[in-house]
Amino acid sequence: MTTPLVIAVDAMGSDGAPGPDVAGAVAAVREAPLEVELCGDGPRLEAELARLGARHERAVRVIHAPEVVTMDDHPAQAFRAKRASSLRVAIDRVKSGAAAAVMSAGNSGAVLAHALFVLGRSRGVERPALVTVFPTTAGPLTLCDVGANVEPRPSMLAQFGVLGAAYDRVVHGRSRPRVGLLANGTEAGKGTELTRAAAPLLAAAAARGDFRYVGYVEGSGIWDGAVDVVATDGFTGNVVLKACEGVATALFGLVRQRLTATPRAKLGGALVAPALRDLGRRIDFAETGGALLAGVDGVVVIAHGRSDTTAIKNAVTLAGRFARADLATKIAAAVRAAVAA
Amino acid sequence: MTTPLVIAVDAMGSDGAPGPDVAGAVAAVREAPLEVELCGDGPRLEAELARLGARHERAVRVIHAPEVVTMDDHPAQAFRAKRASSLRVAIDRVKSGAAAAVMSAGNSGAVLAHALFVLGRSRGVERPALVTVFPTTAGPLTLCDVGANVEPRPSMLAQFGVLGAAYDRVVHGRSRPRVGLLANGTEAGKGTELTRAAAPLLAAAAARGDFRYVGYVEGSGIWDGAVDVVATDGFTGNVVLKACEGVATALFGLVRQRLTATPRAKLGGALVAPALRDLGRRIDFAETGGALLAGVDGVVVIAHGRSDTTAIKNAVTLAGRFARADLATKIAAAVRAAVAA
Repeated sequence: MTTPLVIAVDAMGSDGAPGPDVAGAVAAVREAPLEVELCGDGPRLEAELARLGARHERAVRVIHAPEVVTMDDHPAQAFRAKRASSLRVAIDRVKSGAAAAVMSAGNSGAVLAHALFVLGRSRGVERPALVTVFPTTAGPLTLCDVGANVEPRPSMLAQFGVLGAAYDRVVHGRSRPRVGLLANGTEAGKGTELTRAAAPLLAAAAARGDFRYVGYVEGSGIWDGAVDVVATDGFTGNVVLKACEGVATALFGLVRQRLTATPRAKLGGALVAPALRDLGRRIDFAETGGALLAGVDGVVVIAHGRSDTTAIKNAVTLAGRFARADLATKIAAAVRAAVAA
Repeated sequence: MTTPLVIAVDAMGSDGAPGPDVAGAVAAVREAPLEVELCGDGPRLEAELARLGARHERAVRVIHAPEVVTMDDHPAQAFRAKRASSLRVAIDRVKSGAAAAVMSAGNSGAVLAHALFVLGRSRGVERPALVTVFPTTAGPLTLCDVGANVEPRPSMLAQFGVLGAAYDRVVHGRSRPRVGLLANGTEAGKGTELTRAAAPLLAAAAARGDFRYVGYVEGSGIWDGAVDVVATDGFTGNVVLKACEGVATALFGLVRQRLTATPRAKLGGALVAPALRDLGRRIDFAETGGALLAGVDGVVVIAHGRSDTTAIKNAVTLAGRFARADLATKIAAAVRAAVAA
């Protein structure tokens, strides 16, 4: 039998908090062998639970935290000034060992700062990075970093490839993932000063680690199955992630529009609706849940601020999967292997 | 009556040259009041024309150019070493006034170098930049730069906004386009050292020019109608362009897959096929043709190396539209207005 894992949830994190945060966490424990600790304003969280008929849900506990880190808060200042925030209390639960993972849909800079200051970097890791996964026709594609480090040094960028490869091995089970460096062309002379300096470092890490470095990949390489893992700086990764989400959303809108434009298309649209809904779920990034903050001593999952109940549910479930796989420990071990001389 | 414009075509440019280059140019003159000068290996071009039954096409001339600039050629070295290349001969036709515009699907770095050395920058322009257009549900979105300047200075990045705005005004007819700077968040503290330095310069240029600066936009802002023009460095722009093309292609592949998965979906798929084909054409980036090299003294259109006949046809047609609109002169005037103290 599977022992329930405890996930600490920053229940005041999302743009619509605490509604989606509480409902998503409750939905998660009803589907998976998890327990959640909802950290935040006690009375408000109890009221949300009552509204959901979940006040006596055995797998849900409320931990009162009177303060909230907002999107406008400066990450490090929030850490110093708001010691009783929902985010801080949730991260402390992981530090103390009471929880196996933490999930927050709040200010991602603040989540990063709190994770760094409370949990600390894994040994050998220069900078923790955000890892996310794109569902492609060729299988899952791991992208790292998508926003934690906007202007990394070359050694950090090379490590994002190492972190992404470790994630891919553990989560997707590929034994020697192919790792590429995102650039404006595949020739070695392309890229920036940063990517040209990172490329040989990543190649050297590949020679020591359990992955292959395949060189530069273009933006299209994310989608065409040429690689399993793409390493990039947090600025480019963030822009690409959001641009791809944007084009996917826009395309589905256009498809829907066209499928109701004529009586013939309408009839066809009704027939294909189930297939398209199924497809929509598969490529809906909200369905894949959150991004892992890789390289800290603990499992930290960051969800979109815009997350709805489904997205939160999936992010909490993902945090549970990551904790059960002992992902943080395995990633740390892979980094140590790749950086060892 | 419209006088035919002459477009010089680098007929040895595309990956499959000269086949698509010649066929695309011939298709263009059969649809629009254009004449083309096919620059390249005379005998091969004549053979292609014969194959297409177009040897006596009145609007098509062959100009022999024995050399070819390849994808592996260093741009500036190719300019010095290959003075009889198809690219050089085509650009020279614009310089001499024989042609109103030039189109090439060749080495884009080499096209940039040849345009700079032969045609020169427009007065007031720091660096020419590549402008492309995304078809969105909210209308055309202009993106600049998509690859000409991988590591621009802040003043250059700010000018990419000015160039993009001028393009949008002339080509899409918006009187005061909204211009955003691509970043990893909308708050002013986000972005990189580069974007934070460029932001006030672009705001100052907007105060002098015919556009509005709306601040940072995220990757999703390209698609959600929040802005008309997005300025970014050539590295990020190139990666975003290719990633969006990649996700669009992948999504259409998935839709097709799903629409043949079950008998019910298959029947529906047959009914919606015309609507989807129409949509596919609308979002197929090949349909929009090439990118404008903005900021040089002459109309220079660069197409994808992977261009097929349709893409070349559209790029040649686009070059004709741009020349007829006197786009290069108008963009130069807009830049002078925005940089004037």
